Amino acid sequence: MAQRSYAVVGLGAVGGFYGAELAAAGHPVHFIARSDHDHVQRCGLRVDSPTGDVVIDRVSVHRDASSVPAVDVVIVAVKTTDTSGVLPLVEALAAEGATVVAMQNGLGVEEALATVAPRSTVLGAMCFLCSNKVGPGHIRHLDYGRVTVGEHRRDGGGRGASLVGTAEVEALVEDLRRAGLEAEALYDLVAGRWRKLVWNIPYNGLSVVLDAGTDELMAHPGSRRLVAALMHEVLDGAAACGRQIDPAFVAKMLADTEAMTPYATSMKLDFDAGRPLELDAIYAAPLSAAAQAGCRLPRIEALHDQLRFLDARNRR
Amino acid sequence: MAQRSYAVVGLGAVGGFYGAELAAAGHPVHFIARSDHDHVQRCGLRVDSPTGDVVIDRVSVHRDASSVPAVDVVIVAVKTTDTSGVLPLVEALAAEGATVVAMQNGLGVEEALATVAPRSTVLGAMCFLCSNKVGPGHIRHLDYGRVTVGEHRRDGGGRGASLVGTAEVEALVEDLRRAGLEAEALYDLVAGRWRKLVWNIPYNGLSVVLDAGTDELMAHPGSRRLVAALMHEVLDGAAACGRQIDPAFVAKMLADTEAMTPYATSMKLDFDAGRPLELDAIYAAPLSAAAQAGCRLPRIEALHDQLRFLDARNRR
Repeated sequence: MAQRSYAVVGLGAVGGFYGAELAAAGHPVHFIARSDHDHVQRCGLRVDSPTGDVVIDRVSVHRDASSVPAVDVVIVAVKTTDTSGVLPLVEALAAEGATVVAMQNGLGVEEALATVAPRSTVLGAMCFLCSNKVGPGHIRHLDYGRVTVGEHRRDGGGRGASLVGTAEVEALVEDLRRAGLEAEALYDLVAGRWRKLVWNIPYNGLSVVLDAGTDELMAHPGSRRLVAALMHEVLDGAAACGRQIDPAFVAKMLADTEAMTPYATSMKLDFDAGRPLELDAIYAAPLSAAAQAGCRLPRIEALHDQLRFLDARNRR
Repeated sequence: MAQRSYAVVGLGAVGGFYGAELAAAGHPVHFIARSDHDHVQRCGLRVDSPTGDVVIDRVSVHRDASSVPAVDVVIVAVKTTDTSGVLPLVEALAAEGATVVAMQNGLGVEEALATVAPRSTVLGAMCFLCSNKVGPGHIRHLDYGRVTVGEHRRDGGGRGASLVGTAEVEALVEDLRRAGLEAEALYDLVAGRWRKLVWNIPYNGLSVVLDAGTDELMAHPGSRRLVAALMHEVLDGAAACGRQIDPAFVAKMLADTEAMTPYATSMKLDFDAGRPLELDAIYAAPLSAAAQAGCRLPRIEALHDQLRFLDARNRR
């Protein structure tokens, strides 16, 4: 049986890493990249990793969709702040009904993709990955790499509804596992996205507002208390949207983070590089979903307002 | 009738200004100062002011209470973070029953003074003053200067209770007015302190966390919304403690601040100078009073936690 073919939109720390791993496992992988296009075409793609470096000398890299052959799966691995810019590309790549995967942070990020890919099954994938892009076509993988995958339901998923794992979810999980990665099927994508927000909402935002690493945030009782309070508000929002998360999960996230190597969050890296912050996907969307369910999350609102101020000033 | 005599503890932007104005109006004023003592003894005290400069060549300045004659009024004008260090001084100065005035920011700042001055009437005074200390014995008055004065009730004031203006309150107001200052008697000191917190809680804290002036905070919709939300939480806390503040007061504070000359808050000046922040008086005390009345103020809690983190790092 032929290996399933992939198009990867975005050649950053996420798309570069997973695309290279899938290519190394024998999948036809076509990258769509702008700024890196010429360099990657000339010099290839390189992932330095403690689990084994991957070097791909001849990369199928494209500026737009017109030269990409039909693929089975389209992975969208751009920052959510760039999603609107790649929608025409996704629409073209998915025209024949390819599975579309939002490999992005935040809540509700599948919706825009589902709109331009009406014939496709749309999946959401969350990456628990520490990696940086250190240069054109050059990714440094530091740690982790697990992916969880669930199917986006066009009806919104319903409150508390569970999904049976679909064939498309299982196929992607299988491809990732054969490429040597940890992967897991989610039976409720929305619940999985809320669980990931339990970490992302406090640490991404506070690392920017307080200009601090995860270790510093855990070391001071004030910031640590605020991290925990923000996590509990995420649980309140999830519960209002019909997704119960065990409060013990908060204690686990705090303990896991304390055990982690000090880590600059992706939002802090974006901020320091003057890039726009993923505020809509990580803050506005969950606040709006909770508000629609009648639940206000005041500490998260306050943090979101602070981040909007800092993001605007940072890009002026 | 002899003019009432004053001791002023603290020769900063507040104590230096009001002490000099009272001295210029003919009151015997004795300053207790540490770092500035020698300079002021040699060179005097100077207030540059748009309303008229004040220069006092021969200042009665003291290192401790032992050389200060008995006075009618003791004004405590140190930062609340320094209160505990001056309590023995206040105890000695008030031993004969002098009126003690907490000319300080925050809630409940009179309590420690009342404890060491059991025979005294204790007043709280709030200063709406823009002034900076620009050098030893040298104050620059920029704008405003109004003082509101109320009596501290040792029984805690009761929820919603009103006080009749007492003789001591009226006497201080009269002295300040004769010195050319705006002054007003408060019938409920606690209500007045909550009203002042409506401004202090958002602007002091956010100016530090977001490294921003009042004009920047008002100019961006995110920070402006957060300022307003914090103000409404102060109203919630005040109401829980029996002090209703009209919601129109929030709109007035926002409009007044927009009309103000851009202003670095006192907390921002303290932070930039590496001095401890007045977090207990301005944040912890109102949070605690509200919590005792069954009311949580989540955005203020979050801001307080952020400030605790930044204050600790700033002084490391």
